[in-house]
Amino acid sequence: MIDQVQILGCHSATPRSNAYPSAQVVQMRGRYFLVDCGEATQMRLREQKVSFSKIKHIFISHLHGDHYYGLIGLISTFSLLNRNADLHIYGPKGIKQITLLQLKLGGTYTQFNLFFHELDSKQSELIFEDDKVKVSTIPLDHRIYTNGFLFEEKPKLRKLNIEAIEQIEEIEVCDYENLKRGKDFSLPDGSLLDNKKLTFDPEKPKKYAYLSDTAFKPNIVPIIEKCDLIYHEATFMEGEAHLAEKTKHSTAKQAAKIAEMAKVKKLIIGHYSNRYEHSSMLLNEAKSIFENTIDAYSGLIVKI
Amino acid sequence: MIDQVQILGCHSATPRSNAYPSAQVVQMRGRYFLVDCGEATQMRLREQKVSFSKIKHIFISHLHGDHYYGLIGLISTFSLLNRNADLHIYGPKGIKQITLLQLKLGGTYTQFNLFFHELDSKQSELIFEDDKVKVSTIPLDHRIYTNGFLFEEKPKLRKLNIEAIEQIEEIEVCDYENLKRGKDFSLPDGSLLDNKKLTFDPEKPKKYAYLSDTAFKPNIVPIIEKCDLIYHEATFMEGEAHLAEKTKHSTAKQAAKIAEMAKVKKLIIGHYSNRYEHSSMLLNEAKSIFENTIDAYSGLIVKI
Repeated sequence: MIDQVQILGCHSATPRSNAYPSAQVVQMRGRYFLVDCGEATQMRLREQKVSFSKIKHIFISHLHGDHYYGLIGLISTFSLLNRNADLHIYGPKGIKQITLLQLKLGGTYTQFNLFFHELDSKQSELIFEDDKVKVSTIPLDHRIYTNGFLFEEKPKLRKLNIEAIEQIEEIEVCDYENLKRGKDFSLPDGSLLDNKKLTFDPEKPKKYAYLSDTAFKPNIVPIIEKCDLIYHEATFMEGEAHLAEKTKHSTAKQAAKIAEMAKVKKLIIGHYSNRYEHSSMLLNEAKSIFENTIDAYSGLIVKI
Repeated sequence: MIDQVQILGCHSATPRSNAYPSAQVVQMRGRYFLVDCGEATQMRLREQKVSFSKIKHIFISHLHGDHYYGLIGLISTFSLLNRNADLHIYGPKGIKQITLLQLKLGGTYTQFNLFFHELDSKQSELIFEDDKVKVSTIPLDHRIYTNGFLFEEKPKLRKLNIEAIEQIEEIEVCDYENLKRGKDFSLPDGSLLDNKKLTFDPEKPKKYAYLSDTAFKPNIVPIIEKCDLIYHEATFMEGEAHLAEKTKHSTAKQAAKIAEMAKVKKLIIGHYSNRYEHSSMLLNEAKSIFENTIDAYSGLIVKI
């Protein structure tokens, strides 16, 4: 199982040929999370051969069209393809009304369960959790109510130090589970063997943050600190900082500053304005502040 | 000025690469009418280089997603591009609520005037008229309330027979307008010259009908009689007639029968089910009944 982010679309505002609006698939511990769903996202999913049935959770950052106009089409297609699996939708208050109104007027009733988790808190909150992964909101600063999303692996089990374990005759296979969970081992004489001598530290849980759309907002830094990877919008270059301010977007430099302040490992920039011929200009600007930056394009896959 | 139909998309149900949902541009006497607007229609308009600003009237047949999910995205793009021209939308009751709800939740207010003409009549009615063209509904038989649309040129002015006119000294240039409108000419002695001797019949006004989605419905024949061109849905082949009946669609053969009964000049079939690899199978079936049939594809342009 690979933990990764797959970009379906990463341009702002109006869709054009080869400039698709926001959508990406986050894979973590075998879960598939669709994050934002601009117009024609279902066509990008087909092109990039992402199995529709694997998507069980869709997260919508905000209700500007370039982030969700593809949602109703995707749901309708799921329905036409006779999907059975539950579908959970997380997004701003209003998303349920829009979706159900369109289904109702079309005389369409999904044969699968559709759960809406409407968001209106201005504080970060846990919105999804299972045994391996959790997802929290990251309140952003945009023209309308907007959230980013933090995807975190839950702490993994400790790894068995088989060489050390084999030295201790009393340890049996049925004890392994407790060792993985960090318990010390009780010898028959009542003494304890330190777990750390029998196991290795697990890999650090991975963390990925999606941050779009937002003005420069340094107070998100504590939430995304030391992420393995973040996607931060970079709609404009510094030359258009006045437009970024006016429209509550970020420049490439500001995205890089956030990455630097949060000491993340890697930054992906996206949500480019159509005014830029190529993302390399934005990339260069970001790299001048934060070297480990890459520029998103439709089809890009980045390991977390 | 060319009167024509330009196909943007002509497949049913779920959009795929190169199988785009319903949308077409009807050009008549310099007017551009967009008919249906499936998801990503705005991308097709760009690809086919149809100027956004020329579209002032959009007709939506019914509220199934493959016929209108692209509407809100197109309106939003018009807004982002600072359109000023009025936009008129004709479609089933409910289309106004959906559209305005989405604009409201996105905090978007169009700076151009948006007029909704909601339809709920089960009789054919005139819904648009200017000095050169008129558009009427054609009530269809589908699972939800659906209209086709009849686009008609208004009768043209008669053509001057200059050779005959030059024989009559008394006729001056300022009389031409009356002659074109069919008036006889009064000579000074009070006698009348028959208009037909001074003018030629004008070209017959052109008529085009869009018919999708619908079950076989012979009672539309009087409305579309002797059309120069019709587009009729042909979702299935006769082998799947039971599916056509169940879903209230037509087979290619039924589309052709309508064309034959209405004595139209030419038939375009479209709205193909994704089950057919190529439209040629449907075309052959239709041609066996009505020879002058062509199969729609994205990019096809047909003169009316």
